[in-house]
Amino acid sequence: MLVSRTLAVVGGSAAGMSAASVAKRRDPELEVVVFERGGHISYSACGMPYRIAGEVQRPMASMVALTPDEAKEDKGVEARIRTEVTGIDHDERTLTWRDMEGGGTGSLDYDTLCLATGSAPTPAIPLDPDKGVFALHHLDDGITVDRWLEAHAPEHVAIVGGGFVGIEMAEACTMLDIQTCLVNKDRHVLKRLLDADMAEHVAERMEDKGITLVNGAYADGWSGKDRIEKVTAGDKTVEADMAIVATGTRPATKLAEAVGCRIGDEGGVIVDDGMRTGIEDVWACGDLVEIPHRITGTRTPIPLALHSNRSGRIAGENIAGADERFPGVIGTSVTRFHDLEIASTGLTEAQAQKHGFDVVCGSTKAATTAGYMPDPGTAHVKMMLERKTGRILGVQMVGGRGTALRIDAAAALIWQEATAETAEAVDFAYNPPFGPVWDPIAITARVAEKERRRAL
Amino acid sequence: MLVSRTLAVVGGSAAGMSAASVAKRRDPELEVVVFERGGHISYSACGMPYRIAGEVQRPMASMVALTPDEAKEDKGVEARIRTEVTGIDHDERTLTWRDMEGGGTGSLDYDTLCLATGSAPTPAIPLDPDKGVFALHHLDDGITVDRWLEAHAPEHVAIVGGGFVGIEMAEACTMLDIQTCLVNKDRHVLKRLLDADMAEHVAERMEDKGITLVNGAYADGWSGKDRIEKVTAGDKTVEADMAIVATGTRPATKLAEAVGCRIGDEGGVIVDDGMRTGIEDVWACGDLVEIPHRITGTRTPIPLALHSNRSGRIAGENIAGADERFPGVIGTSVTRFHDLEIASTGLTEAQAQKHGFDVVCGSTKAATTAGYMPDPGTAHVKMMLERKTGRILGVQMVGGRGTALRIDAAAALIWQEATAETAEAVDFAYNPPFGPVWDPIAITARVAEKERRRAL
Repeated sequence: MLVSRTLAVVGGSAAGMSAASVAKRRDPELEVVVFERGGHISYSACGMPYRIAGEVQRPMASMVALTPDEAKEDKGVEARIRTEVTGIDHDERTLTWRDMEGGGTGSLDYDTLCLATGSAPTPAIPLDPDKGVFALHHLDDGITVDRWLEAHAPEHVAIVGGGFVGIEMAEACTMLDIQTCLVNKDRHVLKRLLDADMAEHVAERMEDKGITLVNGAYADGWSGKDRIEKVTAGDKTVEADMAIVATGTRPATKLAEAVGCRIGDEGGVIVDDGMRTGIEDVWACGDLVEIPHRITGTRTPIPLALHSNRSGRIAGENIAGADERFPGVIGTSVTRFHDLEIASTGLTEAQAQKHGFDVVCGSTKAATTAGYMPDPGTAHVKMMLERKTGRILGVQMVGGRGTALRIDAAAALIWQEATAETAEAVDFAYNPPFGPVWDPIAITARVAEKERRRAL
Repeated sequence: MLVSRTLAVVGGSAAGMSAASVAKRRDPELEVVVFERGGHISYSACGMPYRIAGEVQRPMASMVALTPDEAKEDKGVEARIRTEVTGIDHDERTLTWRDMEGGGTGSLDYDTLCLATGSAPTPAIPLDPDKGVFALHHLDDGITVDRWLEAHAPEHVAIVGGGFVGIEMAEACTMLDIQTCLVNKDRHVLKRLLDADMAEHVAERMEDKGITLVNGAYADGWSGKDRIEKVTAGDKTVEADMAIVATGTRPATKLAEAVGCRIGDEGGVIVDDGMRTGIEDVWACGDLVEIPHRITGTRTPIPLALHSNRSGRIAGENIAGADERFPGVIGTSVTRFHDLEIASTGLTEAQAQKHGFDVVCGSTKAATTAGYMPDPGTAHVKMMLERKTGRILGVQMVGGRGTALRIDAAAALIWQEATAETAEAVDFAYNPPFGPVWDPIAITARVAEKERRRAL
């Protein structure tokens, strides 16, 4: 007799839905049930700032890759939204759930468990959506922020946090002509992507656009009665009738801990490269888990969409009997602030030093089109090399149109442990509208390699 | 007593001027004299179609990287324009020259000779600029074409040749609202870059823009009295009151042969990786020489700006005592037709087959932005793999904004002999304005690898 097996997936965002869909595709006999606390599965959190800015015209709620109905029909996966998993008895292979809207509860017997509970915001100041203090993490947050903006027409927005979300929301607010102040605890913005010298170009552009940028300030509270009026950061005060708090996230490990998963030093669930937790029949993936960095050799949670999708896919394949392995990451990232494109791969100089590399850098301001083309572009490029070997450790780029996509070439080089000499030798594409004869990355490699030889 | 040595460089375009400038920089004692038949040195031939289209506003003659005066002042190099080298007696280390304007002649004793005579057009039909039949090779050609267009306002242009120059001139003519017919001997356009299936997307766009595209037709003559009236191709006739003939080039080896340089099977001067000809004190570089292809292992002349600049630089370094080596090429190329971006690296499927590879392909139509962004982009991507190893042999991309620059990532992969599995694993950049979560190259690698495994 054929007994169908059940896979329970907790979390229906990128990782969970990838795991669910892929497992079902590979093993059609599997019953797959996904539990999602929020109102949507499989959505693009990264798109929210562009929707809020009005650049994306369609409603926030439609920015989903898949609805529960489509998941059922197209993927054969049952996805239950607004449903919280309240307990897991893994010895008995059973979990309990609660319908967050209707209030009903129930249980599900499963054979295999996949944890994809993601991450949760770690707001530096208390959130209070009723009074205009928001995080921007789940799609439901985006919907709330969108509505608030429409209903309350704020005049002064404070953004707390200088990472991706902070910069993208700063862009959105200037597009909406709202006075914006960004409060950032670090010495400069986009610390994960850029060193201070490169972040300076972003800061300049932000100030051009009228944003007040307050670096090195720890937001520690806010005040206001019916509605927020001020954000405080030590002795500094920022006037604000709305605040977006984007001060990072941490893995949402509560259920994983309850099941007995090991938690790493960086706060994520420890998994092997196949997304196995070490507990029989328990897998984990997405923002929840620590993933390996190919350059540093360390493991850390990295809440980026590609890694969530990939780790989810790998969990799904392996749950259904494959043996796929997560290849690691090198930290490629891209964002923009208006017409300024910002991209990075590998380690920043500061990160390389922190990890004990003997690092040498080269920086250029390079053309991104032939100089005689209309509206010629330029980019600031910085390349980090390992002093002894010449291996490229990282590349950062900040510039106009035609800057961001070049980072992928740097990523392909770093992925394969290329040296600056290789970066200089590759025949990159040339045509006047798309670049100069000598590619910006090649030019920067030449400068960095010269520095390295001088410093040997 | 210190006796200064003299380097004579024949040809003042990209390769010759790179060799001259780099040799002088590395060895300031060197006297460097460059002879150039044309009216300009160190210019961007690649920019000419964009100037003719009116996209570049400045005059054609100003599209030079360096004037003779600047060469003298900034680089310490004497560049004599409109001066033809009429003979070389290398045993005596002396050359004779003729001033093509004034008619004067003279001779120069040299110690080292660098040949950078470039390539010459191989027009399928006879050129006659007085009657409106042009090549577009030297900057002087561009100036003549620009003037002719202004003076004669042609209504029907025939472009002969479906390579880079043909496509770019077809774009220029449609920008100028001139009825355009492109006559191409091959089965499809851009044969060096694209296979027939990919070229189809270009052909469609050309036809959208009103261009009559005649493939598989060998232009064999033209007729007209004071001015061209028709181009003929076998039994076909194309009405034209102007023609641009862009049917390729071949190395201009006359002087090199006179000096005794060996000529390869592909018609270029044979050099080692240091640009040495094998004749004592004679170097050659640029379009004149055969350069090594890293994938096929063959040597062939490739008249592209980057290779000319690079081989010139290497010749210059080595003339001055260095030991730099040309790293080879993989054939990365990019162009555009209006908003359609066209890029290629490595071998096409047809080229791979011709060179004896057992090749398997994967093709996708991939997004180049998140689908919900305004004006979302897509690209057709084709990847060629070596069946046995999975090594990437080539990538072709044709699509909207954000297509072309991605080819550099493919180039970096191919350069390092990456497999499709690696291409799929690299963490490429993701952010909704710049791409989908799964990069077009990664997606295509996945499809191609699946094909390969099926076909093993």
